[in-house]
Amino acid sequence: MGLGRRRWISGSSVYNDVLSIPNLEDRIRPTFTKTANSKLSILTWPTPPRNVLIVKKRHVPVVRGALVSLARHLKGNYPSTNIILEPSTAHSVHHELDFPVYTLPPSESNTPFPYTQSTYPRTPQLNPRQTHIPQIPQPSTSETGDKAINVVEELGPGGERLYHDKTDLLITLGGDGTILHAASLFSACRMVPPVLSFAMGTLGFLGEWKWEEHAEAVGEAFAGGAMVLRRERLKVGVYDDDGKRVTGEWEFESIGDAHAMNEVNIHRGKSPHLAIVEVFVDGRFLTEAVADGMIIATPTGSTAYSLSSGGSIVHPSVSSLLLTPICPRSLSFRPLVLPADCVLTLKLSAKNRAGKVEVSVDGRHWGGIGRGEEVRVWAEKIDGDKGGIPCLKGRIGGREDDGWVGGLNGLLKFNYPFGEEE
Amino acid sequence: MGLGRRRWISGSSVYNDVLSIPNLEDRIRPTFTKTANSKLSILTWPTPPRNVLIVKKRHVPVVRGALVSLARHLKGNYPSTNIILEPSTAHSVHHELDFPVYTLPPSESNTPFPYTQSTYPRTPQLNPRQTHIPQIPQPSTSETGDKAINVVEELGPGGERLYHDKTDLLITLGGDGTILHAASLFSACRMVPPVLSFAMGTLGFLGEWKWEEHAEAVGEAFAGGAMVLRRERLKVGVYDDDGKRVTGEWEFESIGDAHAMNEVNIHRGKSPHLAIVEVFVDGRFLTEAVADGMIIATPTGSTAYSLSSGGSIVHPSVSSLLLTPICPRSLSFRPLVLPADCVLTLKLSAKNRAGKVEVSVDGRHWGGIGRGEEVRVWAEKIDGDKGGIPCLKGRIGGREDDGWVGGLNGLLKFNYPFGEEE
Amino acid sequence: MGLGRRRWISGSSVYNDVLSIPNLEDRIRPTFTKTANSKLSILTWPTPPRNVLIVKKRHVPVVRGALVSLARHLKGNYPSTNIILEPSTAHSVHHELDFPVYTLPPSESNTPFPYTQSTYPRTPQLNPRQTHIPQIPQPSTSETGDKAINVVEELGPGGERLYHDKTDLLITLGGDGTILHAASLFSACRMVPPVLSFAMGTLGFLGEWKWEEHAEAVGEAFAGGAMVLRRERLKVGVYDDDGKRVTGEWEFESIGDAHAMNEVNIHRGKSPHLAIVEVFVDGRFLTEAVADGMIIATPTGSTAYSLSSGGSIVHPSVSSLLLTPICPRSLSFRPLVLPADCVLTLKLSAKNRAGKVEVSVDGRHWGGIGRGEEVRVWAEKIDGDKGGIPCLKGRIGGREDDGWVGGLNGLLKFNYPFGEEE
Amino acid sequence: MGLGRRRWISGSSVYNDVLSIPNLEDRIRPTFTKTANSKLSILTWPTPPRNVLIVKKRHVPVVRGALVSLARHLKGNYPSTNIILEPSTAHSVHHELDFPVYTLPPSESNTPFPYTQSTYPRTPQLNPRQTHIPQIPQPSTSETGDKAINVVEELGPGGERLYHDKTDLLITLGGDGTILHAASLFSACRMVPPVLSFAMGTLGFLGEWKWEEHAEAVGEAFAGGAMVLRRERLKVGVYDDDGKRVTGEWEFESIGDAHAMNEVNIHRGKSPHLAIVEVFVDGRFLTEAVADGMIIATPTGSTAYSLSSGGSIVHPSVSSLLLTPICPRSLSFRPLVLPADCVLTLKLSAKNRAGKVEVSVDGRHWGGIGRGEEVRVWAEKIDGDKGGIPCLKGRIGGREDDGWVGGLNGLLKFNYPFGEEE
Ligand SMILES: NC(=O)C1=CN([C@@H]2O[C@H](COP(=O)(O)OP(=O)(O)OC[C@H]3O[C@@H](n4cnc5c(N)ncnc54)[C@H](O)[C@@H]3O)[C@@H](O)[C@H]2O)C=CC1
Ligand SMILES: NC(=O)C1=CN([C@@H]2O[C@H](COP(=O)(O)OP(=O)(O)OC[C@H]3O[C@@H](n4cnc5c(N)ncnc54)[C@H](O)[C@@H]3O)[C@@H](O)[C@H]2O)C=CC1
Ligand SMILES: NC(=O)C1=CN([C@@H]2O[C@H](COP(=O)(O)OP(=O)(O)OC[C@H]3O[C@@H](n4cnc5c(N)ncnc54)[C@H](O)[C@@H]3O)[C@@H](O)[C@H]2O)C=CC1
Ligand SMILES: NC(=O)C1=CN([C@@H]2O[C@H](COP(=O)(O)OP(=O)(O)OC[C@H]3O[C@@H](n4cnc5c(N)ncnc54)[C@H](O)[C@@H]3O)[C@@H](O)[C@H]2O)C=CC1
Repeated sequence: MGLGRRRWISGSSVYNDVLSIPNLEDRIRPTFTKTANSKLSILTWPTPPRNVLIVKKRHVPVVRGALVSLARHLKGNYPSTNIILEPSTAHSVHHELDFPVYTLPPSESNTPFPYTQSTYPRTPQLNPRQTHIPQIPQPSTSETGDKAINVVEELGPGGERLYHDKTDLLITLGGDGTILHAASLFSACRMVPPVLSFAMGTLGFLGEWKWEEHAEAVGEAFAGGAMVLRRERLKVGVYDDDGKRVTGEWEFESIGDAHAMNEVNIHRGKSPHLAIVEVFVDGRFLTEAVADGMIIATPTGSTAYSLSSGGSIVHPSVSSLLLTPICPRSLSFRPLVLPADCVLTLKLSAKNRAGKVEVSVDGRHWGGIGRGEEVRVWAEKIDGDKGGIPCLKGRIGGREDDGWVGGLNGLLKFNYPFGEEE
Repeated sequence: MGLGRRRWISGSSVYNDVLSIPNLEDRIRPTFTKTANSKLSILTWPTPPRNVLIVKKRHVPVVRGALVSLARHLKGNYPSTNIILEPSTAHSVHHELDFPVYTLPPSESNTPFPYTQSTYPRTPQLNPRQTHIPQIPQPSTSETGDKAINVVEELGPGGERLYHDKTDLLITLGGDGTILHAASLFSACRMVPPVLSFAMGTLGFLGEWKWEEHAEAVGEAFAGGAMVLRRERLKVGVYDDDGKRVTGEWEFESIGDAHAMNEVNIHRGKSPHLAIVEVFVDGRFLTEAVADGMIIATPTGSTAYSLSSGGSIVHPSVSSLLLTPICPRSLSFRPLVLPADCVLTLKLSAKNRAGKVEVSVDGRHWGGIGRGEEVRVWAEKIDGDKGGIPCLKGRIGGREDDGWVGGLNGLLKFNYPFGEEE
Repeated sequence: MGLGRRRWISGSSVYNDVLSIPNLEDRIRPTFTKTANSKLSILTWPTPPRNVLIVKKRHVPVVRGALVSLARHLKGNYPSTNIILEPSTAHSVHHELDFPVYTLPPSESNTPFPYTQSTYPRTPQLNPRQTHIPQIPQPSTSETGDKAINVVEELGPGGERLYHDKTDLLITLGGDGTILHAASLFSACRMVPPVLSFAMGTLGFLGEWKWEEHAEAVGEAFAGGAMVLRRERLKVGVYDDDGKRVTGEWEFESIGDAHAMNEVNIHRGKSPHLAIVEVFVDGRFLTEAVADGMIIATPTGSTAYSLSSGGSIVHPSVSSLLLTPICPRSLSFRPLVLPADCVLTLKLSAKNRAGKVEVSVDGRHWGGIGRGEEVRVWAEKIDGDKGGIPCLKGRIGGREDDGWVGGLNGLLKFNYPFGEEE
Repeated sequence: MGLGRRRWISGSSVYNDVLSIPNLEDRIRPTFTKTANSKLSILTWPTPPRNVLIVKKRHVPVVRGALVSLARHLKGNYPSTNIILEPSTAHSVHHELDFPVYTLPPSESNTPFPYTQSTYPRTPQLNPRQTHIPQIPQPSTSETGDKAINVVEELGPGGERLYHDKTDLLITLGGDGTILHAASLFSACRMVPPVLSFAMGTLGFLGEWKWEEHAEAVGEAFAGGAMVLRRERLKVGVYDDDGKRVTGEWEFESIGDAHAMNEVNIHRGKSPHLAIVEVFVDGRFLTEAVADGMIIATPTGSTAYSLSSGGSIVHPSVSSLLLTPICPRSLSFRPLVLPADCVLTLKLSAKNRAGKVEVSVDGRHWGGIGRGEEVRVWAEKIDGDKGGIPCLKGRIGGREDDGWVGGLNGLLKFNYPFGEEE
């Protein structure tokens, strides 16, 4: 190991190295070639990928085991692979691996170790309103008697940049929530690395591959030539009464907006009173919604919250924005599917009884907006190698090229036939 | 004024008397005679009503004006009438009236005067979990320099009983929210007095009479022979893991349950995670709902939150309980209409990610239930002169006997025809 | 066999007797005692039932086999039982039984034997507009060389009375369609005999018992004390422009209206143009529907066509009428649940582009109505031993007393959970 | 007037010339330039348009008057304009015009004059199954004493080609039905001329301009530079059991498929039994629908039948195909929005009880398919100057560039607010 390397978890006889991501070489940018089928592109690597970020579902032993196998499989079969892990994962598994793993350096993360929340937050501080990063009491070394306590869990303001600059390939082990979390690590980036997602345990709708297929899947991902669906995201910004962008320190100056994979929604939350929201399309007034809330979803998100609220199911390759009301106080508010080049605005009406409503991104609390403030949403443009979440297409259910139909039938029980009791 | 009378707001030269409700004689119990039309009964008074509780919408000057007119009209035309008002209303209008008004004595109310909340809470302490009445810091007289500060706003533990024991007739001036609030004053009682509701300003769905009709309406109400729709309510109880009733001090030993006019709902509230709720009908497992929440509504409530959540519209004289999911994570959760003699149970699943979900009654926060705890709901039985909210049928839109059709068309814009731009 | 008996299929050495229903003694009228549970009554027989009409699904060999077993079981265990069958069934199975079966005499039935339609029509000539019974060419004896050809299939104008006057107990073997067909045999009667329904093959929603339970079920039915759900029906009448009842020869003068078990609907049928229908509740205009059609359903029918059209699911013991539009050209036409004591009227608008729309009863074509004509619908009153279809409650799925919940979950896949692929 | 001109309605002193379309010079092909706004293109003419086909709503005197004014306006302001009319229109108005009008020659049309059907059929013989054009009895001249009887109404097999080859600009006067009819005249063509549509009387959803704006609108249309929305159509083909295309004589060899503007649907029609339809996406089985029928709609059609059946509203510039079931017998059949480059197949199941179901295109009966036969549907590709229906964007409601929002609010009463009775 070179002199220049900052080893910040000491490699004892027991534990292997946990190294800092900046030590890695910069990422390799793949290209995406269009196919006749507008839905899919072909992934090509200029040189094989090396830096693989593996994100796993929390607190499920079997997933932890799978991660260890996968890391070994990668290192064994593709020796130049470097494994990147989120800090807490790195800390928890590195001693089972006989090669170093990479993670965020302490200064780039916010959450003190040991990590205690029962469900992990995703990219914190996304909310631009919250200009000061909350002071998280740092546990003193004496408390744990080990420098390792400084291995912190979550992404800080610089963390996103590090993942972004170094990750060639992103692998998720878990369900839809894990994919959403992994996507959130790149929510401020325009160039999300290709994602290979393994459904562990309960199948999710977004997971593409079965764990049993992992050798084959990794092979495809490394070789290039794999089919990729680039899922469009939403860009989200909050604006004040005067139309001025509300920004916060969390944002990359050069990158810009936060992105959502499923949806942005505003909701009355705990307030008993209906939210009153003015909706604009390209700046023109569309309607005043009196409702529990409003969802703006991607086609990917059409099978998530929007579905529960009565929205249609939209195939991920139909470029569009979905506008779906949540429990609207109207008999005639039908969900809308709008062109992807619209700007949609949700503005909290001056008439709203509660002073604030809640804004969530991909099911995570993001902040609140007050009367007169607004959330603006655009579909992210997919442009060359920028934009979208490139998801490696899988084989779940033996289907050749479109897992979507299989997901509808197998998972969502779409048009499930009446009949025999089981 | 008799010796026995406790005058607790001194009748100065400017202000007239505000007297305490216990001074009034006990209420007169009307009878309800069935008609051929199962939907309606005929109201008969053994002797004319005298004690009239008028509840008004807050903070709307025109409604305050109407209340003053109405009180004068009642006193002028039915001289033995006694006007009962809620404390803050009493305090605010009594000096415009040249006869005394009655209100709750200070010890029976909880909220310090002056009343500052922007929207008034309805029956406080309904939540049985909250066993201790919060200590509301009583403003000292010195703070305001007037005994009047002791005129408190809201119903305390004994207040409901006082309203219940003394009110012959209940008149509301406002919208649906005002009727819901008025009903909440009797939510622990089995014998709600007949309600005469005037729609002020924006029409509501429950308001039966136009303000312009008030002389005529009052005439009908006093004379007897008026048509009355007895709206069924829900009884609500919270039970713990062991099936033991969770009670609180707020409850009348002899009366029992709290009642809802529109609905009881549980909702994930601020938690980003879907609620997981087990639903039982008469103790038998029906289904596990994964959703934003669940609504159990009366037919009256079928045009309120249940409607927004996709429920059918049920005529108030169809005895039934509605089970309507809020944004269920399922393609196949259709709203149900169940018999009124069912017991419905919503039990928070042990699998629920958040520790608690919120319970609301008629749109007002009621408390929360934890994993394993449950809300049980029955339809209130209508039995002789007990049960239901007897609403005097009105003439809105010139309809003879069923305002419901008019409300659907006029207010809910039911099946509103496509066509001409306006 | 007594002298007076008219034997109209000669009892040869091979075939056993097929006798005429009028030979049977008059039916025994059971009583229905209310239970605490408003949903159920207890069935009591003054003397044990004897005349059992068994109706079976057509063209399914296994069902034919079950019928033969059942008839033998009945005769073996309850020797005074007389088996009544529909003409074609009687003809097809009587030679396998060593006791006589009873059926309609030829003059009371309309369909020539052998019966050839691939799906059996239910009660023909229900349509009052069709005043002349179509001349069905009677096959000459020479064609078949046997008098048996006169055993005709279907109910003629007098058939319904015969079934009605003689049947103590009605047993169905098949699915929902078989129950609907059996009910249609009594559609002009106010006193439908108790129905014991066995689900054969694909379970239906209305079938109460599994075939395996038949010994036990028959035992319960004969003993009395069985639980019975009386399913409310609809009465249907067609009226012309002047409000005059449109009648036909088919009707029993003394009995009156036809009844529907599931629903009455009007539909544009083959016409490409939207139907324009005025809807009245108790004679008061409710709305003008521009739609494919309109359904008026019973709670029993709430899980049939009304469900497919977006209606709520209503428990069969909630007395009510459902009004559900079929593809309404409106964003704001929500299904309604109305009181059972309403009269609902569907009147074809003068503006309707097509001259006629189709009227169906329980999924069977009934006739058409022209502009200005109307269909009026009432819920049948349940009054003492009259009214409703008394269905013996079963044990499907081991549930004690309410198969409805089991049917929702098991058959309708109500709130079917997302998840695992199978 | 040139020698070569075939004058087939003699220009008497009273009537002006009705000339045959082949006399006209070939059409001028406009170009469509993309704008930043993906929704709209700019229309440019190489030389100004001359041949204008005006299609009007039938049987409405005011519309007839408007047509006469419009024709005069065109001729007066753009003297080289030639007016093309449908045969019956030509016959009915030509004598009020002091310049000739053009129409289909008798041999290219099918319907005898005088035209008697109360509602006009659109493109006849669209059904490929109907291989022989029905023999329409030609009225003899003696019957009417005039050659004019040969002015026939409707498009024959060659008519579509004539309209297609000669029409520069298409103007409609009427509602949505008139636009659908006009589009049907070009349903076998890939290059529909730009359409300028005036809403007459009851506004429709597709009409873009108010009649009062006609001078301005015509000016814009002629000048070029107008904004145009190219509405995607569906291509429809019927295939037999062996996957062989079912064709008929009606089809242009060189052009191919019929196109739909709103939707293709299959429906049980008059059959009482649910249709059983297998649905395939790109040849892969999606689901078996048991339903009244199935709709495949364009985004344009999302506000037509699909809306009534519960589909989402899709903006016309979202390239997609909508799959919306009609009254499906399933709780879990949610409408789908699929990519425009899918092939959707609706195949009548071998299990279907009725032998045939009906196929309709844009609300017009098209034919039937039997068990094993299938309807295949593609979205038409928009490619250079081919494909789609180029609709000139209007100013209805003073909106600048997107009438769609105005149409939702003004016509569909989208999210119409609850409230005040009118
Ligand atoms: N009432 C509802 O349906 C609500 C839904 N959500 C959804 O949950 C998402 C967050 O997911 P988790 O963090 O896992 O929260 P979670 O643990 O509460 O699970 C949400 C569920 O949604 C599924 N899901 C997520 N994205 C999906 C997609 N694109 N298509 C189909 N299913 C999908 C997951 O598999 C899981 O079953 C949000 O983006 C939002 O769409 C959030 C709140 C309420
Ligand atoms: N998304 C939604 O539709 C929500 C609805 N609510 C409803 O609001 C009710 C409380 O009402 P407010 O205190 O006035 O709150 P609010 O001021 O938030 O107004 C609720 C709206 O519901 C109307 N409303 C109330 N009861 C009704 C009924 N029975 N039929 C028809 N319309 C009715 C009111 O006129 C008002 O327009 C709750 O009982 C609940 O039903 C509460 C939360 C969310
Ligand atoms: N789009 C739709 O859903 C349509 C439904 N129908 C229904 O079909 C009924 C006639 O049934 P069949 O003669 O068997 O015709 P069918 O053979 O076409 O079957 C109709 C289906 O509905 C089911 N069904 C019937 N009554 C039911 C009930 N009360 N609850 C739940 N499921 C029920 C049957 O089991 C069968 O699966 C009509 O009364 C009507 O309700 C009729 C036409 C269209
Ligand atoms: N239940 C329903 O909603 C049914 C709807 N239709 C629709 O009618 C169309 C044929 O129209 P017409 O010949 O005028 O028949 P029609 O005279 O029966 O009228 C159909 C109605 O649909 C409207 N309409 C047509 N296309 C539309 C569009 N793209 N967006 C919004 N509204 C639209 C028309 O303005 C008219 O109000 C069919 O393409 C089909 O979409 C046809 C049958 C049933």
